[in-house]
Amino acid sequence: MRKPDAVRAFAAAAFMMLAPAAMAQTTLAPHDVPARRVPVPDDVSPQLRAVIAQPLHSGWDTPPVTAEGWRRLADSEAAAAAAVVEPMARRLHVTIEQSTIDGVKVYRVTPETIPTPNARRLLIHLHGGCYVLNPGEAALPEAVLMAGFSHMPVISVDYRMPPTAYFPAALDDAMTVYTAALKMTKPQDIGVFGSSAGGALTLEMMLRAKQEHLPPPGAIAVGTPMADETEHGDSMQTNALVDNVLVSPSGFCNAAARFYANGHDMADPMISPLNGDFQGFPPTILTTGTRDLLLSDTVRTHQKLLQSGVQADLLVFEGMSHAQFTLDDRIPEDRQAFTEISAFLDRYLGH
Amino acid sequence: MRKPDAVRAFAAAAFMMLAPAAMAQTTLAPHDVPARRVPVPDDVSPQLRAVIAQPLHSGWDTPPVTAEGWRRLADSEAAAAAAVVEPMARRLHVTIEQSTIDGVKVYRVTPETIPTPNARRLLIHLHGGCYVLNPGEAALPEAVLMAGFSHMPVISVDYRMPPTAYFPAALDDAMTVYTAALKMTKPQDIGVFGSSAGGALTLEMMLRAKQEHLPPPGAIAVGTPMADETEHGDSMQTNALVDNVLVSPSGFCNAAARFYANGHDMADPMISPLNGDFQGFPPTILTTGTRDLLLSDTVRTHQKLLQSGVQADLLVFEGMSHAQFTLDDRIPEDRQAFTEISAFLDRYLGH
Repeated sequence: MRKPDAVRAFAAAAFMMLAPAAMAQTTLAPHDVPARRVPVPDDVSPQLRAVIAQPLHSGWDTPPVTAEGWRRLADSEAAAAAAVVEPMARRLHVTIEQSTIDGVKVYRVTPETIPTPNARRLLIHLHGGCYVLNPGEAALPEAVLMAGFSHMPVISVDYRMPPTAYFPAALDDAMTVYTAALKMTKPQDIGVFGSSAGGALTLEMMLRAKQEHLPPPGAIAVGTPMADETEHGDSMQTNALVDNVLVSPSGFCNAAARFYANGHDMADPMISPLNGDFQGFPPTILTTGTRDLLLSDTVRTHQKLLQSGVQADLLVFEGMSHAQFTLDDRIPEDRQAFTEISAFLDRYLGH
Repeated sequence: MRKPDAVRAFAAAAFMMLAPAAMAQTTLAPHDVPARRVPVPDDVSPQLRAVIAQPLHSGWDTPPVTAEGWRRLADSEAAAAAAVVEPMARRLHVTIEQSTIDGVKVYRVTPETIPTPNARRLLIHLHGGCYVLNPGEAALPEAVLMAGFSHMPVISVDYRMPPTAYFPAALDDAMTVYTAALKMTKPQDIGVFGSSAGGALTLEMMLRAKQEHLPPPGAIAVGTPMADETEHGDSMQTNALVDNVLVSPSGFCNAAARFYANGHDMADPMISPLNGDFQGFPPTILTTGTRDLLLSDTVRTHQKLLQSGVQADLLVFEGMSHAQFTLDDRIPEDRQAFTEISAFLDRYLGH
């Protein structure tokens, strides 16, 4: 019969500790979480189950330490991705064309059929890859998904990356394309989107547009953004070694971001946009997964947007690690994600 | 120089496994997650840090095994909660009055000042506590928060619980109050809300209202619902022993739900509402936290609502375990939660 007493003690502690005196004395002890075996959830599609069952990203804890090492890593991924992009583009009836806009390399990803209201709309895509990975066609799976599901034309920015160019080259290239887009169509007909580093770049563009007195776009879609590179975010700890993509805050992705920053202050809102002022941002939809190492960065961004008076929607997908909603149109949950993101953009872009 | 090869292999595997033949052969191995020490996050308020730092709910793994044990546990918690409710009601300028509606015990939780548009609005509250805990005033912290922040009158249903009455007594009592409310004001002026078992009861009420051909309310607010009592939900595993409230799917809360079900099929949508048909549900706002054992139940409910054509918003709070947004108005994040939930209800209830 010790239970009632134990629970009473708990309930009392839960509230009494909020008394200022008690709070000052509280020892903020960490939780020790024992080892455990986490099964693949059975409440998702077979395709997503296969993705969740993958082992941890190989080499996650031994990132390259030289510029040449990073370049080789990026090149090797690009080769693997090219084989994925073209079949997906065929399935989703979109065409891909390489081009440049004011000197910046881009891909134009265009639906074969564009319904009338979308003819003057334009989406700008910033790819992920920790500011260092996914050059060339490796950037394109998310752009192809978006063009295929939104039926809007997409310009994917193949921004300069280390070791060719460092901070703020990626953002400069994104702004060059945004500035050009403002000459092509009305701001409210422009959407900007991207995930991971691409989500951060999307937020950074909004901060930079305010600095440069450029009008905001009509809406943005921010996937699991690298919004805070200052080692905060609770899911960095709770989902460490659960997320099979980023795996750990001491893994390759934060190393890559530091390589991009090239000694620049990681707390600068142009690298950690969560430190910026979100007032005046356009309507924003954010997407993450329950196993995402950046679940916290995503929900903190969402809360800060709401507190800044911005219309902001949040999607969280069951069982997904970092950015797994951007992989492949054959995963039903990825189709669902881009259906919902497309509906949001359609709702808030100019009509 | 083994990194590029390792990563290439990963990238190729990520996509090739989606080929049907490969997928059928995939071994869905669980992840073995090593023991780790999870610090208290430093990106939340000091008040929330104190809540997060609390040890695991004492007695979480030794639930009562007799009716008398459950009753004593419920009574002991109720005593602790009473001390919390009245000071919070004073701080938030709401009054509490015990009453009955068609034989069902209720509390009327009423803001001292009700702005004109809220005079004909009415919120019905279903408390949490795994269908067994939080009788009497222990039900009221969330009702007081909602009345205080929404400035709308709240009726909190002190529904019958085991060992006095079993499934579907709680739902029957909730429906009695809803039916009475429909005679007091227009359906679009009624909101229904609750967390945990109260979130599940809110969803179950919507299913039951459809069965009984009653009109839906104007909007609902569903906090971290016990939406699926059939042992699914990935965060049940990933947040096990991280969530310091529910702690584990093999803890006291699922035991309590089985005690309530009293042998009834746990997959019945009136116990596991995620198994129900959400078509025609009113606009819904869902709230959870990154450490919540029911994070997955919440986001799965959100996705199913969206796929059913329902307007559904999702809030996820950094670092929070189960239902910690309902604790106390002195926690800034709890104030923020009820500010946002109130704004949603104000937006979708009748004007």
